[in-house]
Amino acid sequence: MKAIATTPEPPYYAVIFTSARTDNDEGYKETSERMLKLAAEQPGYLGVESVRETGLGITVSYWRSEEAIRSWKRQVDHLEAQRKGRTTWYRSYRIRACKVERDYGFDGDR
Amino acid sequence: MKAIATTPEPPYYAVIFTSARTDNDEGYKETSERMLKLAAEQPGYLGVESVRETGLGITVSYWRSEEAIRSWKRQVDHLEAQRKGRTTWYRSYRIRACKVERDYGFDGDR
Repeated sequence: MKAIATTPEPPYYAVIFTSARTDNDEGYKETSERMLKLAAEQPGYLGVESVRETGLGITVSYWRSEEAIRSWKRQVDHLEAQRKGRTTWYRSYRIRACKVERDYGFDGDR
Repeated sequence: MKAIATTPEPPYYAVIFTSARTDNDEGYKETSERMLKLAAEQPGYLGVESVRETGLGITVSYWRSEEAIRSWKRQVDHLEAQRKGRTTWYRSYRIRACKVERDYGFDGDR
């Protein structure tokens, strides 16, 4: 998971999920790994980048279309994980749905 | 720095900076702290979220307009930091400029 996502030419879409955890780890690791796998199986999924420090986590998922984002948001196991997130794992979070208009990068290995 | 950014109603803009570091820490911490401070002084700056693990870092900065993003990209001290980033601190990075079209969140403390 710990890699820069390989994404196509813009435009495409991104969901920035920024979160602060509670101290309750019950089922967290299993569910977050399961959700990353499940997201990757959804139509229109392009990739994910996810990093967490103690105080804050950022997960960015990339999608082909806004419809793909909406479908994933409504996916039934994901809905249950969202509910558990609010009651148990997250103190607070913010979700931002974005259109990626341009991108560029640098790869020193090339 | 380790907090969810407080941003206005969409639309606004985001720059997602995803990076993999080299082992060379020379001047990295000082410069990255200086750049976060300098960014916060730029016109149109709205906030930043930044998280790093060993393998990967994600910094998302939020801006009022695309013009604000372009100005910050061209800021002279920032240009020098970008150059040093490519020669010294980053093995690879990807920068994605986005329009935030909608957002929502959850705050369990409220």
